[in-house]
Amino acid sequence: MSRLRDTMAERATAVEEELQRLLPVEDIPERRLWEAMSYSCLNGGKRLRPFLVTATADLFNVASSASLRVAAAVEMVHSYSLVHDDLPAMDDDDLRRGRPTCHKQFDEATAILAGDGLLTRAFEVLGDPGAHPDPAVRAELVVELAKAAGARGMVGGQMVDLLAERDEGFGRGMDVAAVTRMHQLKTGRLIMFSCCAGAILGKAAPQLRQALTKYAHDLGLAFQIVDDLLDVEGDQAELGKTVGKDAAAGKQTFVTLLGLDRARTHAEMLVEQAVAHLKPFDAEADLLRDVAHFVLARRA
Amino acid sequence: MSRLRDTMAERATAVEEELQRLLPVEDIPERRLWEAMSYSCLNGGKRLRPFLVTATADLFNVASSASLRVAAAVEMVHSYSLVHDDLPAMDDDDLRRGRPTCHKQFDEATAILAGDGLLTRAFEVLGDPGAHPDPAVRAELVVELAKAAGARGMVGGQMVDLLAERDEGFGRGMDVAAVTRMHQLKTGRLIMFSCCAGAILGKAAPQLRQALTKYAHDLGLAFQIVDDLLDVEGDQAELGKTVGKDAAAGKQTFVTLLGLDRARTHAEMLVEQAVAHLKPFDAEADLLRDVAHFVLARRA
Repeated sequence: MSRLRDTMAERATAVEEELQRLLPVEDIPERRLWEAMSYSCLNGGKRLRPFLVTATADLFNVASSASLRVAAAVEMVHSYSLVHDDLPAMDDDDLRRGRPTCHKQFDEATAILAGDGLLTRAFEVLGDPGAHPDPAVRAELVVELAKAAGARGMVGGQMVDLLAERDEGFGRGMDVAAVTRMHQLKTGRLIMFSCCAGAILGKAAPQLRQALTKYAHDLGLAFQIVDDLLDVEGDQAELGKTVGKDAAAGKQTFVTLLGLDRARTHAEMLVEQAVAHLKPFDAEADLLRDVAHFVLARRA
Repeated sequence: MSRLRDTMAERATAVEEELQRLLPVEDIPERRLWEAMSYSCLNGGKRLRPFLVTATADLFNVASSASLRVAAAVEMVHSYSLVHDDLPAMDDDDLRRGRPTCHKQFDEATAILAGDGLLTRAFEVLGDPGAHPDPAVRAELVVELAKAAGARGMVGGQMVDLLAERDEGFGRGMDVAAVTRMHQLKTGRLIMFSCCAGAILGKAAPQLRQALTKYAHDLGLAFQIVDDLLDVEGDQAELGKTVGKDAAAGKQTFVTLLGLDRARTHAEMLVEQAVAHLKPFDAEADLLRDVAHFVLARRA
């Protein structure tokens, strides 16, 4: 896996540089807003989603200037969602990737605005010719990202998650299907977009795009199950965030519903399935195969 | 002005219907989110921004199906900004257009998510072929809306406004130029987008698009000065929101900086200037001329 680790680190650096270019902190009255936007994006995360964008784009020989732009936009959306989810009115988290969350470092109002600014900037980046010379490609990227991030995607999933936490009857009533649907919305859809983005940028044949969509579907769910496992078994210092929160909140997770062993087996099966969907691609998709195994093995 | 009033009422109804179509409340687990999104958009507002979109689009014979879509998207962005600005961590308002604000009617977390959902949905609508058959037009709409709504526009302006309120030195130090810049960002840019959107949809000649941009620039500023005047002279029941808030917060406004009389004269001059920019257009732009006078005469 050292090939994967090296490539991921290299891509993460390239994405950080792209984010820095796209989020300049200048000496203007609203400087604090840009500082908060930068702070929330530039934090040395794993950059899984940007990695998926560039790795799938590479399958179709997309110019790296284009795929890095789109990768940065996806990371802005991911970061915005974390900033808003961490707010006191939402999950009320103080710690994120080992640092104070945005509203702790700045303040609540600035965090709300920084999230809004990042989300909006992402669409600006996708609509701009820098993302792709063909406007039809850009318009499709905008629509697909909006679907993944909006009320029928990430935002909808977060609403269900909050309802599950607050309404005991609602939360307890969730079975594996309901928990799966929630996670598909909350995290799965953006992971699916990340993998589709490469295919959209590369104007891939429909069956290849569909193969990547299916890969992303299974990968995203495996990712979430591992998240649930880490919330029980993980190390707080390594994770850089509070563990045991789900259990404390009395939420249904894959672990409470299936138990540790079956949850892990389920994740393993999903990763195998994800890799199987990559059959149409030769060795060029090995990084995507590796990343699937990485998702399973990750400790943070 | 009854011609204008009738046309505005008629267009407002058409936009409400479009918003209802675009924001369906279905029986799904996250139903509450869609209810909050609907509640925040469908409230019988004046719909000034959507009106500007359709009125400028009419100058270039744009299909009304297209201009209504774009008008609805602009109103979603306007509504999202009000929902987030009203939050306790921001302006902490309980009343909006005579009804409880979104976080009062629902709760804070739902209001944050409803705002996020509306903003995202707006970009989805603009990127979708329903907004225009030409993807280059759609991509341009996306970029221009993002610029108007984001950290270099509305979000940036709200940050400056908050800083002015919280940091006494910063607030007191604002002169007419600084207050003007803040309002250009906070409300002016979205009004400019609303007028440009018609020109973009109609692939207008650059000089006509520029004429509309200048019109919108002056109209937007006049609109804000009247807002400041109404905060001092307005009637709370008519306005449907708390008055005297700016004075209470010790903020610099056009009224505190210029006084009531000079502020009103300034607004009148801007409206005259706005109308003068419409010279390249014949009687077909009479609605836009009327709307400029309406902005000056409005009591709410």
